[in-house]
Amino acid sequence: MLVNYKNIIDRELDKFCDELPPMSIYEPIKYIVELGGKRFRSSLTLLAADLFCGNPELALKESIAVELFHNFTLIHDDIMDGAPLRRSQPSVHQKWNVNQAILSGDLLYALVNKLLANSKSQSTEIHQLFQQTSVEVCEGQSLDMEFESKENISLDEYINMIQLKTSVLVACGLKIGALVGEAGPKDANLLYDFGLNLGTAFQIHDDILDVYPLKEEFGKQVGGDILEKKKTILLIELLKKSSKEDKVSIIQVLEDDEIDKNLKVKKIKNFYNKYGVLELAEHTKNQYFEKAIYCVNNINISEDKKQQIKAFAVALMSREI
Amino acid sequence: MLVNYKNIIDRELDKFCDELPPMSIYEPIKYIVELGGKRFRSSLTLLAADLFCGNPELALKESIAVELFHNFTLIHDDIMDGAPLRRSQPSVHQKWNVNQAILSGDLLYALVNKLLANSKSQSTEIHQLFQQTSVEVCEGQSLDMEFESKENISLDEYINMIQLKTSVLVACGLKIGALVGEAGPKDANLLYDFGLNLGTAFQIHDDILDVYPLKEEFGKQVGGDILEKKKTILLIELLKKSSKEDKVSIIQVLEDDEIDKNLKVKKIKNFYNKYGVLELAEHTKNQYFEKAIYCVNNINISEDKKQQIKAFAVALMSREI
Repeated sequence: MLVNYKNIIDRELDKFCDELPPMSIYEPIKYIVELGGKRFRSSLTLLAADLFCGNPELALKESIAVELFHNFTLIHDDIMDGAPLRRSQPSVHQKWNVNQAILSGDLLYALVNKLLANSKSQSTEIHQLFQQTSVEVCEGQSLDMEFESKENISLDEYINMIQLKTSVLVACGLKIGALVGEAGPKDANLLYDFGLNLGTAFQIHDDILDVYPLKEEFGKQVGGDILEKKKTILLIELLKKSSKEDKVSIIQVLEDDEIDKNLKVKKIKNFYNKYGVLELAEHTKNQYFEKAIYCVNNINISEDKKQQIKAFAVALMSREI
Repeated sequence: MLVNYKNIIDRELDKFCDELPPMSIYEPIKYIVELGGKRFRSSLTLLAADLFCGNPELALKESIAVELFHNFTLIHDDIMDGAPLRRSQPSVHQKWNVNQAILSGDLLYALVNKLLANSKSQSTEIHQLFQQTSVEVCEGQSLDMEFESKENISLDEYINMIQLKTSVLVACGLKIGALVGEAGPKDANLLYDFGLNLGTAFQIHDDILDVYPLKEEFGKQVGGDILEKKKTILLIELLKKSSKEDKVSIIQVLEDDEIDKNLKVKKIKNFYNKYGVLELAEHTKNQYFEKAIYCVNNINISEDKKQQIKAFAVALMSREI
C-alpha cells in the first residue's frame, strides 16, 4: 500500500543526494541514504497528508526530513553502540572514522533543519513539533544507554524509553503530514497517538521476534538480544516475575561468557517459557496495537481510508513491509 | 560596552540551565554552559536588535540560541580534536566519555532548534539563515580537519575555511538581531558583512597572537600552533613565499619531534621574519578589518551608534574584551 509513497520518497532522496555539494564531508551522508531502507516513517508522512488533502507531495520536504533525521540518528547511534554494520554494510564510522561520522551526522541534522526552514508547507507548529521530537529522540537514546548498566528497570521505564527512542518520530511524521494536509487538531493528534502506539507495539514485537522469529532466517542469530544482555521487554518481565533462586541462575547464565551461544539462548528461553513471559509481552504489545486501532477508528475520515491504515498497521506488525 | 548584554545573557543562560530536566544527559550541557565565556556572539545579537528597535530583549531567545549552538560545536569539536581541556577545565568527552559527548551535543543542538521554534520573534527568514549557517559551520569544521593532511592550501582556501568555521556564526547572530529589531534588508546585510569581515580579521589576528603575543602569558606556550603544525595564515604564507631550499628546511623543522619545543618555535619564527610573513598576515587582517568598518559606516544609524560599534570592534581586536 505504501509502495507508491516509497517510490516518491526514493526519487526525492536521490535528488537530495544529487544536489549535495562535492565536498568530502557529504560522502557519508550520500552513503547512508543510498543504503536504502523501507522508508516507512516518511511514507507515513505522505500518507497522512494524502488522507486529508489528497496531495501527498505537499508534505514531500517534511517527509524526507523525517527520513533524513532518522538516518542522522543511525550514524550517531552506530558510533555509540560500536556497531560495525548497518544494513549489512559497514557503518559510517567503520567505513570512514569516528570524526567523520560525528561531523557528517551533525551536518545531516543541519540539512534536515534547512529543508524544514525552506519548505513551503512550514509552520510554527511543525517546527515546534519536529524539534520537540528531536529532543525526545536524544533523551530516548540516552535512556537506552543508561539501561545497559541499570539493574532494575520497570515496564513503564522501558515503554517510556522505546517511545522516546522510536515511536515519537513515527508519530511526529504522521502528525506533520496531517498538519500539512490541513487536518483539524483532533484528527492530527489522533494520528500522532496512532503512530505512538503502533511504534510501541512494533518495538515490543521486535523484542519478541528476536527470540521467537516468525521463520528462522539464514545467518540471523536467534536470541541476539540475549547474547548482548539487552534489556528487552522479555528480560525485564522475566527478572520481575522470577523467584529469587531462578533470578540468580538467570543472571549467572547471562553473565557466563564461556557457555555456547545457542545453549545460552536455550537456557534463557526455558526461563521465558517457565514464567510465561512471551504471553506477558504479547499482551502488552496487543494493548498498544489496539490503542493504535482505536485512534484510527476515531479519525474523521472515510471507512475506506480507515481500512487502508489498519491494513498497513497489520502488515507492518507481521513484517510484510 | 557589551557588559550589560553579557549580564542579560548570563541570566538567561542560568534560567535555561535551571529549567533543564533532571536527566543525566543534560548534565554535560549544564557543565559546558556554566564554564562561561565572553558571550560575545550572543551579545552582538542583542546589540543588533538594540540598534534598530531599542529593545534588545526581543532577540533574547535568538541570542542564547547562537551562544548555545556555539557550545554544541565546542563539545563535538573537542572530541574531534582530541582536546582534553576547554576553558582550562576537562572537556565534556574527557569528564564523561565520547558517547555522552556526542549525544549531549546532539541534544544541545536540538534544544537550540526548539528555542528558535518557540520564540515569539521567529520568522522564516531567521530559520533559513540560522540553518544555512549551521550547515556552513559543519562545512568549516570539515575543511579544518581536511587541511591537517593537505599540503598546499591557498590563502583563499584558508579564508574560506575560517569564515565558514567561525565568522558566519558571528555574522548570522548579528543579522538575526537586526531582523528581530526590524532593520531593513540593506542594513541587516551590512551587519552580516560587518560580522563576517570582523570575524575573519579576528581569526587571522588569533593566528598572529599565537606566535607574536601582545604580552607573554604565564603558562601559555608561544607558538603552540607551530608545535601542532597547524595550517595558520602565517604558515600558509611562509610555504608560499619561501625558496625551494628553505621550504625543505621548514618542513624538516616542523616534522622534527626530537627538537626542543622553544627551539622549534624560534626556528620557524626566524623563517617568518626572513619572509616578512607577519607583515603579510597583518596586511590581510587589516583589509578585513577595514571592510568591517566600511560596512558599519554604511548602515543607516546615528553616528553615535556607529562609533559604539567601531569601538567594540577595536576593543575585540586588541583582546580587551
